[in-house]
Amino acid sequence: MSFSLTVLGSSSALPTSKRFPTAQVLKVQERFFLIDCGEGTQMQIRRFGLPLSRIHHIFISHLHGDHVFGLFGLLSSMNLLGRNLDLTLHAHSSLEHTIKHFTSFFGTGLQFRIVFQPFPSRRTSLIYEDNKVIVETIPLKHRIPTVGFVFREKKRPLNIRKDKVELLKIPYRDIINIKAGSDFISEDGKVFKNKDLTLPEIKSRSYAYISDTAYHEKITGLIQNVDLLYHESTFLECDRKLARLTGHSTALQAARIADKAGAEKLLIGHFSSRYKDVSAFVEEARKVFINTFAVEDGDVFQVEQTREQ
Amino acid sequence: MSFSLTVLGSSSALPTSKRFPTAQVLKVQERFFLIDCGEGTQMQIRRFGLPLSRIHHIFISHLHGDHVFGLFGLLSSMNLLGRNLDLTLHAHSSLEHTIKHFTSFFGTGLQFRIVFQPFPSRRTSLIYEDNKVIVETIPLKHRIPTVGFVFREKKRPLNIRKDKVELLKIPYRDIINIKAGSDFISEDGKVFKNKDLTLPEIKSRSYAYISDTAYHEKITGLIQNVDLLYHESTFLECDRKLARLTGHSTALQAARIADKAGAEKLLIGHFSSRYKDVSAFVEEARKVFINTFAVEDGDVFQVEQTREQ
Repeated sequence: MSFSLTVLGSSSALPTSKRFPTAQVLKVQERFFLIDCGEGTQMQIRRFGLPLSRIHHIFISHLHGDHVFGLFGLLSSMNLLGRNLDLTLHAHSSLEHTIKHFTSFFGTGLQFRIVFQPFPSRRTSLIYEDNKVIVETIPLKHRIPTVGFVFREKKRPLNIRKDKVELLKIPYRDIINIKAGSDFISEDGKVFKNKDLTLPEIKSRSYAYISDTAYHEKITGLIQNVDLLYHESTFLECDRKLARLTGHSTALQAARIADKAGAEKLLIGHFSSRYKDVSAFVEEARKVFINTFAVEDGDVFQVEQTREQ
Repeated sequence: MSFSLTVLGSSSALPTSKRFPTAQVLKVQERFFLIDCGEGTQMQIRRFGLPLSRIHHIFISHLHGDHVFGLFGLLSSMNLLGRNLDLTLHAHSSLEHTIKHFTSFFGTGLQFRIVFQPFPSRRTSLIYEDNKVIVETIPLKHRIPTVGFVFREKKRPLNIRKDKVELLKIPYRDIINIKAGSDFISEDGKVFKNKDLTLPEIKSRSYAYISDTAYHEKITGLIQNVDLLYHESTFLECDRKLARLTGHSTALQAARIADKAGAEKLLIGHFSSRYKDVSAFVEEARKVFINTFAVEDGDVFQVEQTREQ
């Protein structure tokens, strides 16, 4: 039951020979969510061995080219590969017009349906939910309407202890109730507490994606205690004026957000190509938040499944 | 005075992890011409060490996504890098609308001017000329209006033999005439033939780019004796019906064109991703045209400068 993030692209607006523009795939229990779709996303998906046909939801943070220009090639390739399942695009409403322009201009349209799910950019909203996962938006502070996304596993049913089922001869009809949290009362009226009959709860894992934004402390309330936080770090603190001017963050600011949010691990990326060496970003961030890592294209970050203590 | 072709992308519509969609850079005597612009072109330009800022002319064969989707990222990056020189786009007229949609939708427009140079697709035409190079279109047979391009160096002024200048004390005013092809008449009325005063002519080098097209023998008259011919080979001969149906060529057909055109060297690419191994393409083509090579992304093909015998 994996929960893992693959970084497809980690540059800021100007890609380098080693960093493609922004895109990531989050795998949550056999679901593959594509987050942003910079130029070359489809090639990176192939390069890093991810299944293009199993992506059914794409989340676009904002409509700057370095987060979007890979969509057209990706949709074309899905079509060429014979896709017929719906594809849901979660994005700012104005993307719909551009996609329509494209599908009508280049070729004879797509054989699958694109379901547009526009979201508001000024307030948080629940934009995806199934029996295992929910996704909410995080309004950010950038030059155009921009949101981040937080992905959280739902609580799982409790695992019942097999030794107790056998020992107490718990009938099948009671097992469902126990899994949902009930105590068990035996035929002779004895009460067994739920916590003595079940394994400790499996923790819900979570991932927050924050790109692009100026320093924006308000978001920390919406991403409390995430296991994994990706926060853009376009600049170093020495260029923080430029960061504010362009609606971006410094490595130190990303670390402050991670710290205030009580995140477990911080990933930084979206580095400006003006800096030749990313080690300075990590060094700067670790002054505030030690568990910081600079991402590279192709990196995979797992969140292990654990139980409450 | 180089004449060299760098292959940036060599896949057909569906890129693989090793082959990007179609794009090439032809360098002719310090000019860098970009031919087609599939997704990821800007990354390949960086990866293979070519100077983005020195590309001033882009030639687009047709408006299928795998030949165009890299344009938007490329234009954005040129803008971010501070370009202010005009960029000329040679393409079918309907590309202008899409480029305008893009530059207005994504960001606040470009700081440099895009000069659209639409060309007719049904007849050959001269679309570029400077003091060293001319470029002409080659109408092709594809599902939508499509052209190839032939790049030819112009004839160079003759190189005068320095030993003759000294021996015959040729005055400066006569040297220009001799370089243009005149004989020399000395003060005592003696005639010296031009060919005895000059080095053999430097051969004009040429490159023809033919993608995408069904087998189309008519083009061989327009690309006679090119040094380098790139011809698409999407399919193998066993799938020639599919080739005809989709407006593409087989390796054997590409070889026939090379043979009939009297080309010096044939490069094949645009391979369908259905074939795992490209060696079958080379094998098939070499039955007809021995000097055939299958291109890979990053390959560089030089045409050496030589003189007439």
